[in-house]
Amino acid sequence: MKATAIAPSNIAFTKYWGRKDEVLRLPANGSISMCLSNLFTTTTVEFSPDFQKDEINIDDKGRIIKHLDRIRRLANISLKARVATENNFPSGTGLSSSASGFAALTLAAVKAAGLNLSQRQLSILARQGSGSACRSIPSGFVEWLDGDTSETSYAKQIFPASYFKIADVVAVVSERKKEVPTSFGMQTTQSSPFMEIRLRRMKEKNKLVKKLIKERGFKEFGEFIEAEAMELHAIMLTQYPPLIYWTPGTLTIMKLVGVWRSEGLPVYFTINTGQNIHLICEQENVDKVKAKLKELEEVKEIIVNTPGEGARLHNASR
Amino acid sequence: MKATAIAPSNIAFTKYWGRKDEVLRLPANGSISMCLSNLFTTTTVEFSPDFQKDEINIDDKGRIIKHLDRIRRLANISLKARVATENNFPSGTGLSSSASGFAALTLAAVKAAGLNLSQRQLSILARQGSGSACRSIPSGFVEWLDGDTSETSYAKQIFPASYFKIADVVAVVSERKKEVPTSFGMQTTQSSPFMEIRLRRMKEKNKLVKKLIKERGFKEFGEFIEAEAMELHAIMLTQYPPLIYWTPGTLTIMKLVGVWRSEGLPVYFTINTGQNIHLICEQENVDKVKAKLKELEEVKEIIVNTPGEGARLHNASR
Repeated sequence: MKATAIAPSNIAFTKYWGRKDEVLRLPANGSISMCLSNLFTTTTVEFSPDFQKDEINIDDKGRIIKHLDRIRRLANISLKARVATENNFPSGTGLSSSASGFAALTLAAVKAAGLNLSQRQLSILARQGSGSACRSIPSGFVEWLDGDTSETSYAKQIFPASYFKIADVVAVVSERKKEVPTSFGMQTTQSSPFMEIRLRRMKEKNKLVKKLIKERGFKEFGEFIEAEAMELHAIMLTQYPPLIYWTPGTLTIMKLVGVWRSEGLPVYFTINTGQNIHLICEQENVDKVKAKLKELEEVKEIIVNTPGEGARLHNASR
Repeated sequence: MKATAIAPSNIAFTKYWGRKDEVLRLPANGSISMCLSNLFTTTTVEFSPDFQKDEINIDDKGRIIKHLDRIRRLANISLKARVATENNFPSGTGLSSSASGFAALTLAAVKAAGLNLSQRQLSILARQGSGSACRSIPSGFVEWLDGDTSETSYAKQIFPASYFKIADVVAVVSERKKEVPTSFGMQTTQSSPFMEIRLRRMKEKNKLVKKLIKERGFKEFGEFIEAEAMELHAIMLTQYPPLIYWTPGTLTIMKLVGVWRSEGLPVYFTINTGQNIHLICEQENVDKVKAKLKELEEVKEIIVNTPGEGARLHNASR
């Protein structure tokens, strides 16, 4: 009763911000993302009568135990588990480690518990651990349907990883963990005077970004995702209390991206709830973007991602 | 036919962003501000048959000549003018030099032209040069009525300077001029999906901030103005093209203000269309705020302001 799973982080082109059901983690709006090839969590779960209690090698144990309980209920077991989990990137810095983390935990624990679930069932389960984790189950370009019930809120592939040849060049400006957890900030989204307007527009925005991915027109796609990132941060800045996830390094790069574009390099940014920034470009321009970032003292690390595989068992091919 | 005027910059507690009439410079909403005691423009205007053309010692000559033309029409003169103007602070960096500049130009030119105008008429005239200049005509705490005609859009005092003992400690983080002029950004406000909601709320917001000034409750006032500044910047970030006036230094101080508050120092920020940041505190806390700012390498200069006098003639008392 032991299994190891690997799951990617994902980058959202339309963001998950706010929930219509806190307990079930139903999002206020659907969202579109892609799985990232080089940001991932590897998690091993073992259930055994030898364990007196759940043994977990990271913090945030309460939320993980709650998730193990969901899986134990499904499998009708009561064995305690040992969980060993590791990210290959800094967590709590805007790189969505809870997405990769809960996707890997879900798949490893389900397998270790002997359950045989469909991808959709895995996605629904991962969502209950951390909303955006559901988007790290399928591969490539993914849509998370908001749904009105737990059973209808899951992510599915909309295009395979090879469909649109873009890259996400992550610039790590700091490994310092965010001060306000995403889950906390999400509870006060309605305090922004602009949240209602945002939600009213999200169906149209999701429809549009799917069309832009389908057409593979990079400029229009890039402009869209950058504006959507700005919108997310405009909402957070106008919440009470306000949330400022940018740091000076983030802001420096945001502005430079505009300068680089004006110099002829097609690159756009998106940012989640953290200081590290995702630069989106066509795969053919990755080296140019990397070269620009390497010149900056603000950049501590560069991680190049292409659209990647979703959650999978270790040593298993999909 | 020569006169010298001094006019203050002003800091808005509710911001002027967007116009309902571009030609008359009627603002999309009314706004509340205070005049600043230590940021000012001194302008001398002389009309003389000796001048073959308008001689002006700064850039942006076209806009100044247009304003002189307004005053020449009113005075029924056609003499050319010599204009010598000087700010005691860096212009084009978020410290509202066009407000102090056009208020001083208006008063000096009106006087030099031999006109005798009321404060209201001066405010209406200044507004046509640069919208927020109308708020630098009266003293102390000021309200700019949006109006539906040129004659009804002017600023008037709502409380004298001594009424509310606050200070505006300006932190200059850079003297670099903004890349996008305010007037330009103001033309695309409607491209923000949130502008409509903002405008719908401004009447209520102005009512509230007047009440907060009246009650002199600093904490509520401070929270209000900081949220309003965030709202202005949220609008600008979501415009097309987006406007990012913050620099890393701005952002560093924005975040530190929150830290200082959590340590017991009641201080709040507001920011206009530029990188330099206004820290608002009670006058009794000015030294503490200054001491905090002095520790920061990001801060190049500190300018302490109290609520100040409006535009006045040189060597004249009001």
